[in-house]
Amino acid sequence: MTIEFARFDMSAPDDMSGLAATLDTIGPVTRLAVLAKVEGTATINDYSRGLALRAMTDCLAAQGVHADTETQIVLSTGCEGIISPGGMLFFERTAGTTRFPGLALGMARSEPLTPQQLLATDHARIAAQVTRAAIRTSGLDAADVALVLMKSPVLTHAAAVSLSPAHRARANSTALSRGVAALGIGLALGEIEDSEINDAAIAGRPDLYARRGMVFSGTETLRCEAIVLGNRPGFALALHCGTIADLIDLDALASVLAPDAVDPLTQVRLMAKSGRIAGAFFKAGARPDGRIRGQRTTLFSSELDSDKHLRAAASGVLGALLGDARTFISGGAEHQAAPGGAVFAALVTE
Amino acid sequence: MTIEFARFDMSAPDDMSGLAATLDTIGPVTRLAVLAKVEGTATINDYSRGLALRAMTDCLAAQGVHADTETQIVLSTGCEGIISPGGMLFFERTAGTTRFPGLALGMARSEPLTPQQLLATDHARIAAQVTRAAIRTSGLDAADVALVLMKSPVLTHAAAVSLSPAHRARANSTALSRGVAALGIGLALGEIEDSEINDAAIAGRPDLYARRGMVFSGTETLRCEAIVLGNRPGFALALHCGTIADLIDLDALASVLAPDAVDPLTQVRLMAKSGRIAGAFFKAGARPDGRIRGQRTTLFSSELDSDKHLRAAASGVLGALLGDARTFISGGAEHQAAPGGAVFAALVTE
Amino acid sequence: MTIEFARFDMSAPDDMSGLAATLDTIGPVTRLAVLAKVEGTATINDYSRGLALRAMTDCLAAQGVHADTETQIVLSTGCEGIISPGGMLFFERTAGTTRFPGLALGMARSEPLTPQQLLATDHARIAAQVTRAAIRTSGLDAADVALVLMKSPVLTHAAAVSLSPAHRARANSTALSRGVAALGIGLALGEIEDSEINDAAIAGRPDLYARRGMVFSGTETLRCEAIVLGNRPGFALALHCGTIADLIDLDALASVLAPDAVDPLTQVRLMAKSGRIAGAFFKAGARPDGRIRGQRTTLFSSELDSDKHLRAAASGVLGALLGDARTFISGGAEHQAAPGGAVFAALVTE
Amino acid sequence: MTIEFARFDMSAPDDMSGLAATLDTIGPVTRLAVLAKVEGTATINDYSRGLALRAMTDCLAAQGVHADTETQIVLSTGCEGIISPGGMLFFERTAGTTRFPGLALGMARSEPLTPQQLLATDHARIAAQVTRAAIRTSGLDAADVALVLMKSPVLTHAAAVSLSPAHRARANSTALSRGVAALGIGLALGEIEDSEINDAAIAGRPDLYARRGMVFSGTETLRCEAIVLGNRPGFALALHCGTIADLIDLDALASVLAPDAVDPLTQVRLMAKSGRIAGAFFKAGARPDGRIRGQRTTLFSSELDSDKHLRAAASGVLGALLGDARTFISGGAEHQAAPGGAVFAALVTE
Repeated sequence: MTIEFARFDMSAPDDMSGLAATLDTIGPVTRLAVLAKVEGTATINDYSRGLALRAMTDCLAAQGVHADTETQIVLSTGCEGIISPGGMLFFERTAGTTRFPGLALGMARSEPLTPQQLLATDHARIAAQVTRAAIRTSGLDAADVALVLMKSPVLTHAAAVSLSPAHRARANSTALSRGVAALGIGLALGEIEDSEINDAAIAGRPDLYARRGMVFSGTETLRCEAIVLGNRPGFALALHCGTIADLIDLDALASVLAPDAVDPLTQVRLMAKSGRIAGAFFKAGARPDGRIRGQRTTLFSSELDSDKHLRAAASGVLGALLGDARTFISGGAEHQAAPGGAVFAALVTE
Repeated sequence: MTIEFARFDMSAPDDMSGLAATLDTIGPVTRLAVLAKVEGTATINDYSRGLALRAMTDCLAAQGVHADTETQIVLSTGCEGIISPGGMLFFERTAGTTRFPGLALGMARSEPLTPQQLLATDHARIAAQVTRAAIRTSGLDAADVALVLMKSPVLTHAAAVSLSPAHRARANSTALSRGVAALGIGLALGEIEDSEINDAAIAGRPDLYARRGMVFSGTETLRCEAIVLGNRPGFALALHCGTIADLIDLDALASVLAPDAVDPLTQVRLMAKSGRIAGAFFKAGARPDGRIRGQRTTLFSSELDSDKHLRAAASGVLGALLGDARTFISGGAEHQAAPGGAVFAALVTE
Repeated sequence: MTIEFARFDMSAPDDMSGLAATLDTIGPVTRLAVLAKVEGTATINDYSRGLALRAMTDCLAAQGVHADTETQIVLSTGCEGIISPGGMLFFERTAGTTRFPGLALGMARSEPLTPQQLLATDHARIAAQVTRAAIRTSGLDAADVALVLMKSPVLTHAAAVSLSPAHRARANSTALSRGVAALGIGLALGEIEDSEINDAAIAGRPDLYARRGMVFSGTETLRCEAIVLGNRPGFALALHCGTIADLIDLDALASVLAPDAVDPLTQVRLMAKSGRIAGAFFKAGARPDGRIRGQRTTLFSSELDSDKHLRAAASGVLGALLGDARTFISGGAEHQAAPGGAVFAALVTE
Repeated sequence: MTIEFARFDMSAPDDMSGLAATLDTIGPVTRLAVLAKVEGTATINDYSRGLALRAMTDCLAAQGVHADTETQIVLSTGCEGIISPGGMLFFERTAGTTRFPGLALGMARSEPLTPQQLLATDHARIAAQVTRAAIRTSGLDAADVALVLMKSPVLTHAAAVSLSPAHRARANSTALSRGVAALGIGLALGEIEDSEINDAAIAGRPDLYARRGMVFSGTETLRCEAIVLGNRPGFALALHCGTIADLIDLDALASVLAPDAVDPLTQVRLMAKSGRIAGAFFKAGARPDGRIRGQRTTLFSSELDSDKHLRAAASGVLGALLGDARTFISGGAEHQAAPGGAVFAALVTE
């Protein structure tokens, strides 16, 4: 059993030719995680993700990825800046080589959450359970987990109708959906204490954050769905992950990938130029006041949603570091990193 | 006569409190160039620049910057990504110290262009004349000019009514306004031959570009208006300028500021951390196919104008390099750099 | 003392040539109310209103409308659909004829509201006091008031910092600013009982509404500012006003202007064609579920703010009825009309 | 063989539950035309139509509408204003009653157009041939055709690469795609002479227009695809169609539906209230200067595409006339009506 990784390009949200070709190349898989950046407007009436999901599901079926193959799909909208639309696969094969012999993959999903559970402490605890279940299927210890990617459901206005006014006020918040699931990841990873998971912590304790989690809210599921990635002991580190203090902290980004180097930035630039960075993942956050290094930005005071600013700026930061536009960049790092911070992960070959 | 430089913050397009305070601090000036990034939507019905201009003019008058002080204002809309709204001043005083003893400043403007001249070779030649005139007032030789900042007028649909169909088809193009003026800058700086300035070159010869010019199109003037900045021989280089091949070419950016360093990137990071980068300017361009490093982007296929993507991504690139969000970033590098390239300039203290 | 009315066109938010020409024509005025539709994006970084205000203030000063002339300005952003950008004046002269001998005008403004007062019952009571004060200066009885136009301040996030969590949650809501001021207008006009003005009524009692008020929220003032318009007894009715059940209730619109006609629609179409409708005002609202006649719309589920949909659609409705694109149309009828309803007023000559 | 008509609601672009239920109700059909308004952003990266098409195709297959049933789908994006997202069906059954015994339906499509043919006179002539072919299948004479709905392909930048510069300059123009196909409809209907179909007429002869055609440009097909609707002689008129001079010409709209009434507006209002208007179709155009009744609008000078303004305003006009938000409203009436005019059609029961 080995885990490998591949990337494919997309010329449109429903262009699965790259995915199909990749699946043809890699042969039969026993487990499969697909992530993709989709290029819609990221507004409430953006249907690019729905189209991509439909096309991807059809493609997987046509390619013989049967229902009994454990599969997890994470679609993220928004290719602002220079983000190149496209996808990434983590896959398990019974045979075949891998560039990442130590890479481990786990997946799990919860039962559908009820409105009462959504955006409440139950939501966090279920996210923790799902994380733990995914860790178990990865064969890792929690300490060896590098990154938890999680899809977290949203409480719609319609579903919130019968809830208490305080609970109902949380409806439609994708930020809270991400944050509460991230608390659960932090709990499962030992970064947050069980006693700290309470109602006041949801959005009220920015000092609690998961450090090794990225959460994507989605209306297409009522389940918490986790992909766990990590490094098996005894192998070279494949997946590096860490948090940085703000979006433009270039040295911290470099240190995540080359923690032991004398000059991490020079080292990472060399790694990038020699093609050793196979894929990168980034969750960008903003300080509540929108400032960066003390300077005012328009993150929260323009016609664009702050996530659009963040994704675009992050595409420049990571493009500069890695020389690559195909990074999986997403906005909203609530309870994933400190306020204004970000989570950065990358898959590195030897 | 010395030239100094200062920056001020703006909490809104009409917030000139920072400008007023700066003018109070620096005392009487004999020449003044003001640049500002203004935070409107950058759509056709964005009136932020008009508001800022009105507020700035009122402020200068109230501060006693009289009509006989030679003044040039350049406003650029769009603070996408993490661009911090605010302004920059280059000013000449008869007394007072400067961090940049070798810095030279020149200014000039043309007569109003006629519709027949606009977006035609006349426009380029007038831009060249204005550049040369500004160089003369700077006291520099053309070879010592580091950067020409130029405001170039736009041919409106209304003004184009009586022109030939081919000429009229150019109406309202801010890209052509920038490009044709940049050809003139290149001509004045010896980067482009006089024989190369012809109708076919306008938008049709991307191999012709000015290298040390940044052009801002504007509907508020019918004149070509130039600010020339450069370094007087015999002093430490104050203003560095160069072109880079694409938006994420981090090494090339570093080489512009530390051309002689063994490791320019490390050197520039040190300069930035020790506060030696006083201010930076960036003109971002895109390849016509929108690709970067061969990878597809949505620069030309989204609900956002490509300039908005470019400015936002560039704010990340420069933020990463310089640790600063107050860079003067503008989109549209037609005939200023090679297609897909950019112009980068920064003011460096010893 | 007579009150007259005029309209002027604007080619841009800062084009006051039409206003200046109108002021030239009408001669000295003792009181002046100016309303204008401004064509910005209506996003948070739309500065068209600031530009218009600056240009208008300069114009009034240049035209000799001195500080001792009682003046009230209401600017409303958003010319979606076929709304023609432009302004309207109500003015009082000591001499001069009027087409509206019975028209009465009153104006008043409050002291600046404190954060504690904003968006609380105090805000409503102050709006009521200002309305009553304006009615007094109009010389009318409350029953003869046809329309109260009010500017209502917004509670900014910054100002709300020290307030209770429940109060702070109301910050930045322009809808609440409009609604709470409208409650006050209703109180002053006898449409709402004093005992009904309580915290639970703010946004929670849609059955309470002013019927003869239109409120415009604005960040440029902390005062409640009222313009009262009405008809003096013994004259032909000049200003008609009423509410309609939904945006497309054409018969109800007609009945507002021709309440006694056997066939109001035919009658109003005749009035419009013969030029008897001098000016029209419209406040458009939406049902919370966004439905109209039971049918789903995208008022609350698109990339556009609901007000942009409403203004555009209303421009079609009123254009169809009146054959005119210069109607003063504004979105947000909270506590001004029943949910989904609208307020319609028009100035009619004999 | 009878033709009937039905409408269905959509809660999202991929909600085909209403279509499925309608198909269940109406039973087997031999020919089927489906039109739907889809609620995306109508920007270049709006994928709502692709999602709807995929969902609709799957639904038709699941409902047993087999490949041998002649089917034509027209999807139109943009539900601005109060347009209710949803669909309409014209269908032919071998059995079953109809409210429209005289209604006739025809369909045809061309071979895929080559880049050389697209947006050239060939395109117009092919549109004419397709129209004639569809008329033949409808069994009508051209004089009895009430409305031709046509999908017209777009010349993409990629496809235009090898064309002449003048031809290439037309690439990506949806307006030209609509206009040139409309010239063909006009030719087929005898409204335009064959000698008038030349290169200069494309966009240069606004006096040529089809009067009974509505064209929808689409990138999903390279064919011209026509749906012809009309009234068989000897039956009560089912489908009325006509052009109006401008968007707010309420009397002209009424005259289209009640041409012989003494008071068409009163008559149409009665028809609408008694449920006699089964469905309505509208193609909205704008004058090149954006003016309406001589008054300036922001149709061509705002952050929104003119079609978004037009659709939204038209939804108000038609909502006012018909009391219904489910009208099929589309923007862009090039060569379909006179500049600034519109095409209006409605299906009326006795």
